[in-house]
Amino acid sequence: MKLISYQAKNKKTWRIGCMLGDRVVDLQEAYRQKLISNTEKDTLTAIEQVFPAEPNRFFSIGNSVIEKAEEAYEYILSNNTEEVSYAKGEVNVGIPISSPSKIICIGKNYADHVAEMKSEIPDFPVLFAKFTNALIGPEDAIEKSASTNKLDYEVELTIVIGKEASKVKKADALEYIAGYTIANDVSARDLQKRTPQWLQGKTLDRTTPIGPWVVTADEVGDPSNLAIKSYVNGEERQSSNTSHLIFDIPFLIEFISDLITLNPGDIILTGTPDGVGLAMNPPQFLKDGDIVTMEIEKIGRMENKVIES
Amino acid sequence: MKLISYQAKNKKTWRIGCMLGDRVVDLQEAYRQKLISNTEKDTLTAIEQVFPAEPNRFFSIGNSVIEKAEEAYEYILSNNTEEVSYAKGEVNVGIPISSPSKIICIGKNYADHVAEMKSEIPDFPVLFAKFTNALIGPEDAIEKSASTNKLDYEVELTIVIGKEASKVKKADALEYIAGYTIANDVSARDLQKRTPQWLQGKTLDRTTPIGPWVVTADEVGDPSNLAIKSYVNGEERQSSNTSHLIFDIPFLIEFISDLITLNPGDIILTGTPDGVGLAMNPPQFLKDGDIVTMEIEKIGRMENKVIES
Repeated sequence: MKLISYQAKNKKTWRIGCMLGDRVVDLQEAYRQKLISNTEKDTLTAIEQVFPAEPNRFFSIGNSVIEKAEEAYEYILSNNTEEVSYAKGEVNVGIPISSPSKIICIGKNYADHVAEMKSEIPDFPVLFAKFTNALIGPEDAIEKSASTNKLDYEVELTIVIGKEASKVKKADALEYIAGYTIANDVSARDLQKRTPQWLQGKTLDRTTPIGPWVVTADEVGDPSNLAIKSYVNGEERQSSNTSHLIFDIPFLIEFISDLITLNPGDIILTGTPDGVGLAMNPPQFLKDGDIVTMEIEKIGRMENKVIES
Repeated sequence: MKLISYQAKNKKTWRIGCMLGDRVVDLQEAYRQKLISNTEKDTLTAIEQVFPAEPNRFFSIGNSVIEKAEEAYEYILSNNTEEVSYAKGEVNVGIPISSPSKIICIGKNYADHVAEMKSEIPDFPVLFAKFTNALIGPEDAIEKSASTNKLDYEVELTIVIGKEASKVKKADALEYIAGYTIANDVSARDLQKRTPQWLQGKTLDRTTPIGPWVVTADEVGDPSNLAIKSYVNGEERQSSNTSHLIFDIPFLIEFISDLITLNPGDIILTGTPDGVGLAMNPPQFLKDGDIVTMEIEKIGRMENKVIES
């Protein structure tokens, strides 16, 4: 199931939906239909409590409400969807989770990228942060501010946490994942490197697209063998596979949750492969009008324009 | 005014209050009394909208609701407080703001601390992050987990943002500050230094006390000349003055808000002076049972025990 944060074009609120072919299904409405069909009417008055429509609240509940969304999706598959869905062109698509309690990023996690950055393979995962001010949706433009002249792209497989995770073992780690999405960990190299800590180059306002949706963990299956690519203006820049992660996803969940309690809706960017603009000869940074495309197998494709802000 | 997050001992909810001598005044209740006295009864039904009682929502509105809190405080000063207040012993005191959208920390911001860490004065403020999992209140214990053997203290003057701040100039910066509090930027030196990014040593679960309250900006006045101290088991360890900040508060607000839009309730830890445990000869780290005390002039004093978790 592809979970999407959508806004009907004549409405203000963002709601959780899923893709059904070319249509966007409102999942709370679908779940309501399913309940009505079962005459479980007692639950209807409290539907917002058991199945919140707002995407951040939906993901902050995590796996238990995603199971209800799967039931709603199954119901809609065998029934008329017209009442509870929109054509794709009738909606805006937003950041899947716009206010996670944590955005944890992993640096130096593909050996070829470590090499191109003339850095060293780390002994432990390198963790750093972004804040929510950086996030934009899959249809938004990446804003290049006057503060940077070295804006760069980084395609990253991104984990969405599905239940509270503390001291989780590798063998159980995948159970704690709600799904996967794509992030472009856009980085202002000049600001990232002017102090020893990268944060100021990693969390500029409206620079980090996430999307286009969250593909549920069951639909992705094994996350350790996915092709991962990026393009600028159609030219392939990065092309690798998540099998090349130095610290794989189960290890990362064990490592992070040993130190930091993860909450449903938290997101983890797992690192980028080689091919970033900084490492090209000469370096190629993002400029006004560029189109940056990210692709990850089984997840999808996200395309964002760069504009000067 | 000293804004406090409190919980009556027989209740579950946390509410915003302020200190009045030894008593804790419930500010929403005080504001309600003021409105009743003025027969502004129309506003009463919607009081939660204009004056939320929950501390995170209160601070996420920021300066405009703090002005209402000042009015409520003035009203209570000249009236009977019994109905709207508690003796200090009747309440628990919590984290002033437990879910800020950003916790921004400044590293290397006192020259004597940079020297003791055998580091170099930075050309630009060094920004790094914590997440909310790290926060604890002024009455809570600092949890030393088995993941670290080098847990260290850092007393820091901490800013609470009062209104949305983007591209703010130094001259206007203090207008964007709701108030000040104390943080102990507890750091696991072994984890902080095992990768090039400090995050994993800075955001361990339940390590970072904030409090005991937020002193409003008007009561502090100029933040650039405050004595700042820490003690472990009564022994003075850090003793400096905020006049020694390399990048002062107006500069930090200008610098950060040029890159990152700040929201009301965001908190900024401004850096620690020399005297940390790592720099002692031999180094002295925090251990089970230690009492760590932080003091900042015009703000107050916070004392936390260390326990093994």
